[in-house]
Amino acid sequence: MPTVSLTDAELQTKRRSLFASNSLAFYRTPLVLERAEGVWVHGRDGRTYLDAYNNTVPVGHCNPEVVEAICRQAATLNTHSRYVHELVLDYAEELIGTFPEHLNKTGFTCSGTEANELALRIAASHTRKTGFVVANFAYHGTSMLLDDLSPFAGGTSGANVRVLKPADVYRFGEEGVLNHFTEGLQEAIDDLESKGFGFAALLVDTIFESGGIFPHPTNFLSSAEKIVHQSGGLFIADEVQAGFARLGEIMWGFQRHGLTPDLVSMGKPMANGLPCAAVVGRGYLIDAFYDKSHYFNTFAGGGTAISAAQTVLNIIQRDRLTEHVQEVGEHLLFGLMRLMQQHEMIGDVRGAGLFAGIEIVSDRDAKTPDNKAAQAVVNGLVESGILTGSAGEFGNIIKIRPPLIFSKENADYVIENLDEVLTKLPRKLGS
Amino acid sequence: MPTVSLTDAELQTKRRSLFASNSLAFYRTPLVLERAEGVWVHGRDGRTYLDAYNNTVPVGHCNPEVVEAICRQAATLNTHSRYVHELVLDYAEELIGTFPEHLNKTGFTCSGTEANELALRIAASHTRKTGFVVANFAYHGTSMLLDDLSPFAGGTSGANVRVLKPADVYRFGEEGVLNHFTEGLQEAIDDLESKGFGFAALLVDTIFESGGIFPHPTNFLSSAEKIVHQSGGLFIADEVQAGFARLGEIMWGFQRHGLTPDLVSMGKPMANGLPCAAVVGRGYLIDAFYDKSHYFNTFAGGGTAISAAQTVLNIIQRDRLTEHVQEVGEHLLFGLMRLMQQHEMIGDVRGAGLFAGIEIVSDRDAKTPDNKAAQAVVNGLVESGILTGSAGEFGNIIKIRPPLIFSKENADYVIENLDEVLTKLPRKLGS
Repeated sequence: MPTVSLTDAELQTKRRSLFASNSLAFYRTPLVLERAEGVWVHGRDGRTYLDAYNNTVPVGHCNPEVVEAICRQAATLNTHSRYVHELVLDYAEELIGTFPEHLNKTGFTCSGTEANELALRIAASHTRKTGFVVANFAYHGTSMLLDDLSPFAGGTSGANVRVLKPADVYRFGEEGVLNHFTEGLQEAIDDLESKGFGFAALLVDTIFESGGIFPHPTNFLSSAEKIVHQSGGLFIADEVQAGFARLGEIMWGFQRHGLTPDLVSMGKPMANGLPCAAVVGRGYLIDAFYDKSHYFNTFAGGGTAISAAQTVLNIIQRDRLTEHVQEVGEHLLFGLMRLMQQHEMIGDVRGAGLFAGIEIVSDRDAKTPDNKAAQAVVNGLVESGILTGSAGEFGNIIKIRPPLIFSKENADYVIENLDEVLTKLPRKLGS
Repeated sequence: MPTVSLTDAELQTKRRSLFASNSLAFYRTPLVLERAEGVWVHGRDGRTYLDAYNNTVPVGHCNPEVVEAICRQAATLNTHSRYVHELVLDYAEELIGTFPEHLNKTGFTCSGTEANELALRIAASHTRKTGFVVANFAYHGTSMLLDDLSPFAGGTSGANVRVLKPADVYRFGEEGVLNHFTEGLQEAIDDLESKGFGFAALLVDTIFESGGIFPHPTNFLSSAEKIVHQSGGLFIADEVQAGFARLGEIMWGFQRHGLTPDLVSMGKPMANGLPCAAVVGRGYLIDAFYDKSHYFNTFAGGGTAISAAQTVLNIIQRDRLTEHVQEVGEHLLFGLMRLMQQHEMIGDVRGAGLFAGIEIVSDRDAKTPDNKAAQAVVNGLVESGILTGSAGEFGNIIKIRPPLIFSKENADYVIENLDEVLTKLPRKLGS
């Protein structure tokens, strides 16, 4: 290990020499981090940032209870799932217990990508079809198949993939969105059938994170579900973003929509940052798939990650984080609504629980997305010590998605600084 | 958490009720594990087993240095790679330092599956082709694409996949194997070209683990490499099994074959059991791929796993594990050779470093694979307190692949017990 520290600029150069030259680092001036705890992240330069972005640490960076669980288990037993480990069974039982009764079996994986891959393989195996439908500008993972199923990534989708029109109620209205997810879905399925692929599954992130964060209305996905099931396909709820109490009141995003998914994939927040993910689904689907396949995932369900995941689930339940997230989320949303009254460039504010999107527009009437201004706001916020990000097809939606332990005071701090950044921003910056 | 312990049988029932009913657990009587340290694994029933199987813990179960690194880092900072983290850069630099000069950039992932997916995406992007060639009975991962590229899994391979004939020198001789990997490869490539897929890459595990463990000869893969490069495709070395000093003398399996791979994937042993994997490859390939794609992997390169990986690499280098593995591996192989002289059912013994395969046959002259007898030996060994497994197209090859810190005494213990198990085994069990 080198003993002489490099400057931040030298570290950037080193980064570009070891990874892809253009590996994206967040923010105009990338952050060199040193340590973190709770909702706070500390730069190597001594600066402290409020983390209003990272959903991978739902119970806070370096949560002491999680760290203790990791240490204890890493020193005791961390092996694969072809041996029997009671701790892993107990967690599987408790995780399944957070789902409606029909979702009664699980398969662990290492990442959301692997969870979606497993869900898609189960769907293809069950239906013996290869056609998939996804939402506009969706992102579902890094594998070759999931890249095809991720219009976000910009690649041409495979011949067996259909993409729905946006769930963007702000621009298309409730009726427009309902049409996209009913008539549009039926057309997509018919087209897949007519081209010989058949229809295997609709895969959908129930908060539409990369598409632009659309928590409302909550009626159109249940209409889509009816069409999916009438067509003999499976409904896969991708809860990598929406799950684990993120949206307040309930544990899973699909519950807000009154859905009965066949398979649910989850990942990011599951083990507070250790790689850990899963599919939970109808038992007969999971049984049938494993009967036919040789699926085995070496690292999945390892004791150390599961021990962290168990602690996260304990804390969510013990500290009633669904209620906490609902309360702080409402407080945050209320504050953002107030800002919208004062700042012309906020075209829309929307959210559920601790997942909020702020549409930055150059023209409120025309609802013109203003990516440049949004990026200026995100960079302004990091300069004032707050981590956020952006989302949506036009990159103009500021994304606030903090650890679930975020407090009302944290939310107020975001509001105050956002107010200042917006006030200082040159008007019509991006137009 | 339940306070009353379930019996082992009740745990099995619980396992079948939470996961797929037929989720494979190793051994006739599945092991319920409680703790492990070094090369020893402890069952909940108080029994202790010598671990001659698990490559995921190269420096030993619950290695105290690794545990300390995990604890320290989990309590300090564990975040994604869009922030800059010096520890992660230092590890990337040291990892790349173990490769020949032309392999000079890396991309981290969470699992071998994700590493192979990344390598295949890079190859497809670079060549603009979609045809892949793999070895007989190969296993490369759990995604839909990799399942297609894993004849091991028994599924019908995709139209864009060709499978080479076995590297089984025991049955086909050196010339036969060389033919499979030259003429056979050329035919596969020609066929992919003629069918319009074109040829993107040969993906090959350089120890042929699932195919049956074929460490020798070491000449045919370099002939295959020439054909791959003449055809404009990429050579991807899958080092998930062979890498990180497993084969003795050298760090990477492809080095034994004098290869110049374009991309190398690695995983399993990298972080001593925490999910952690990577691709290392030619910089221009990695740069070009990230230029064109939006590849980002949330958990990959997280501080906690990388801290464990750094400790593993430190120990491999500090304790000269390549030399240790070579020495103990030779001792083990010598012992197994002696057993072959005494036991008719051992048709062949082969290995490199601490990766040995023992062919169990019912007829030495006909080289008839005897799966039943091999399973009886594996189960006999576990009853005598030693964990092994089986491999190969016919499941008749006993696989010995212990932690790298295995000692000569550990190897002797395996030999002695294997001798006893073989002696007690009814002759002609499987024929």
